Amino acid sequence: MERKNISSPSFFIGKGQGDDLISFGSGQPDLPPPPQVYDILPTYRSFKYGLIQGQENLRDALAKQYKDAHMDQFVVTNGASEALDLSLRALYEPGAKVCLPRPYYYSYPHNVALASMEVRYYDLERGKINLENFKEQAKHCKIVVINSPANPTGSAQDIETLKEIEKFCEDKHIWILSDEVYKDLIYERENYLIEGQRVITINSFSKTYSMCGFRTGYLYARDPEFLQKVIEMKTHTSMNTNILGQEMAFEATKVSQEFLDEQLKIWKERRDLFYEGLTGLGLDVWKPEGAFYLFPKFPGKNPTDVVNDLYHDHKVITYDGHWFGSPTRVRFSYALDKEKIEEGLERIKHYLDQ
Amino acid sequence: MERKNISSPSFFIGKGQGDDLISFGSGQPDLPPPPQVYDILPTYRSFKYGLIQGQENLRDALAKQYKDAHMDQFVVTNGASEALDLSLRALYEPGAKVCLPRPYYYSYPHNVALASMEVRYYDLERGKINLENFKEQAKHCKIVVINSPANPTGSAQDIETLKEIEKFCEDKHIWILSDEVYKDLIYERENYLIEGQRVITINSFSKTYSMCGFRTGYLYARDPEFLQKVIEMKTHTSMNTNILGQEMAFEATKVSQEFLDEQLKIWKERRDLFYEGLTGLGLDVWKPEGAFYLFPKFPGKNPTDVVNDLYHDHKVITYDGHWFGSPTRVRFSYALDKEKIEEGLERIKHYLDQ
Repeated sequence: MERKNISSPSFFIGKGQGDDLISFGSGQPDLPPPPQVYDILPTYRSFKYGLIQGQENLRDALAKQYKDAHMDQFVVTNGASEALDLSLRALYEPGAKVCLPRPYYYSYPHNVALASMEVRYYDLERGKINLENFKEQAKHCKIVVINSPANPTGSAQDIETLKEIEKFCEDKHIWILSDEVYKDLIYERENYLIEGQRVITINSFSKTYSMCGFRTGYLYARDPEFLQKVIEMKTHTSMNTNILGQEMAFEATKVSQEFLDEQLKIWKERRDLFYEGLTGLGLDVWKPEGAFYLFPKFPGKNPTDVVNDLYHDHKVITYDGHWFGSPTRVRFSYALDKEKIEEGLERIKHYLDQ
Repeated sequence: MERKNISSPSFFIGKGQGDDLISFGSGQPDLPPPPQVYDILPTYRSFKYGLIQGQENLRDALAKQYKDAHMDQFVVTNGASEALDLSLRALYEPGAKVCLPRPYYYSYPHNVALASMEVRYYDLERGKINLENFKEQAKHCKIVVINSPANPTGSAQDIETLKEIEKFCEDKHIWILSDEVYKDLIYERENYLIEGQRVITINSFSKTYSMCGFRTGYLYARDPEFLQKVIEMKTHTSMNTNILGQEMAFEATKVSQEFLDEQLKIWKERRDLFYEGLTGLGLDVWKPEGAFYLFPKFPGKNPTDVVNDLYHDHKVITYDGHWFGSPTRVRFSYALDKEKIEEGLERIKHYLDQ
């Protein structure tokens, strides 16, 4: 029987809940949000439009998380996705180019195209930015996207690299869209916040607080004209972000550091287990500093075959590197518990042994 | 002391809550949503990504509200605003024109510009479409927007007019974006659903169920290619609509017709009271068939002066017709209780008597 190749992540949507499937697919935490976010629900009764820019309590709490920031510098959005979409649309200029990392989060090239701009890529080397190559590409662009820690590589860029990028872009008047949605999932160091007059920080409650489905994200920027443009645009394209999602996110901002540390510990244990497992199977993979992805190469195998074989013959869901601009690797999300990770490793071993 | 003219609705955001102000400004129901929508909150615990297209239970319930419709023909969006934004972006073609009613809902021209298309207008006559003029403009366009019942005019178009538009656009292969967010607020007849292969119906839970702040809207279309394009786009621009807002909307779909009839009765009483009040004051205004707006002309007065005078000297909020493409009229929303409407009428009388 002929088998049609799986062509995009959407093939797997809704799959991976059954007992028999092991899903290293979707990039969403399996751990539930902090219980506090549900505590406000029983008595919640608001229903009117909120401020387009976002609820004041939430923006005030966010401003306190960033040094010298003010609540007026934040716009609450329908997840990081809308923050990215609005930012690119607001910065649109005919003929402008946007520099993306490759491999990339699979929406990036679409976001750039949807904002009618042109893509250039800076190629990562085993997840890391090569500064020379970066500068060579970035100098032709109005905007660069930095994603550290990154999806799909799990890599956090070195702080020296990020500082150099900050300086280079400031000198050349290049805008930086810094997608830091994994900022609280770094195992080796604190997050380094990229700063500057033309920096737009994009973040979300989806990864840190497992609130993916509630779609509460935000952008933080210093340029008042840019902020005004985004708010004006959002007035016409979606209005306020769901007011209840925002209140739940506000509750999440009150969660203790201990809670976040505890989560991080769980993620780190999973990373170590899975990294050791995959290297033990002889796969070519680096140890990621953040997020919850491993991005191995299967020597002698095409990633499309790997994804299809693992799914059809071993009931293991993985994502094809092609979807992220990488023709040699396979993305594994380790957002699942240790028992499942171990069972998944067994199945991969079985596949490789054949 | 010099007074700066109020230049947009955003001036009034957050105002109108005080005891002393009477707000005929914002177009949002003051009546709360059906209590059922809150009933699910205490036990709600989901948090994961939902389907980009929207929750199946909600789409299934929506499909049952439309004759011969299927749940796959619906996309749940962040309010009608996102439905409009995505539809226009999906239909984008270089150089294409979009035909809008004038006066218009104030976002329309911005939505068209944000989708990089060009606007043409068909001018309404006391809220009504002149078919000859409509056809003259529409024949140059790829897309027309129909808004019945309408903001800011309150007019519902005659069924014969809508049928003629359906036929004309089908013959000429023109897409119809039918913004029917006020479909359940018609006082004179049932809503007439515009249908066709190139028709996109836009709707929302904001007006019928007073759920503005939760931003749950949808589009309904028959063209599978268009639907696929919208879903693909939404994957990158916002992902699923807030999952909890969708569950609340699903509960709203179970609300009895009696509840909706009861609401409609309240709105009709307000309309009659306010319409009689304004005509009694000698203002030039038509009796609107739907929505919750009156759009009078103040003979001998510029609407900008009226809005400023009423606000600064009489503490009455109204919206300048200029914001809706009408240089002679003032928009009043009667989304407030009878006592306030009566107090508002008193103040307007006082203003006119001066």
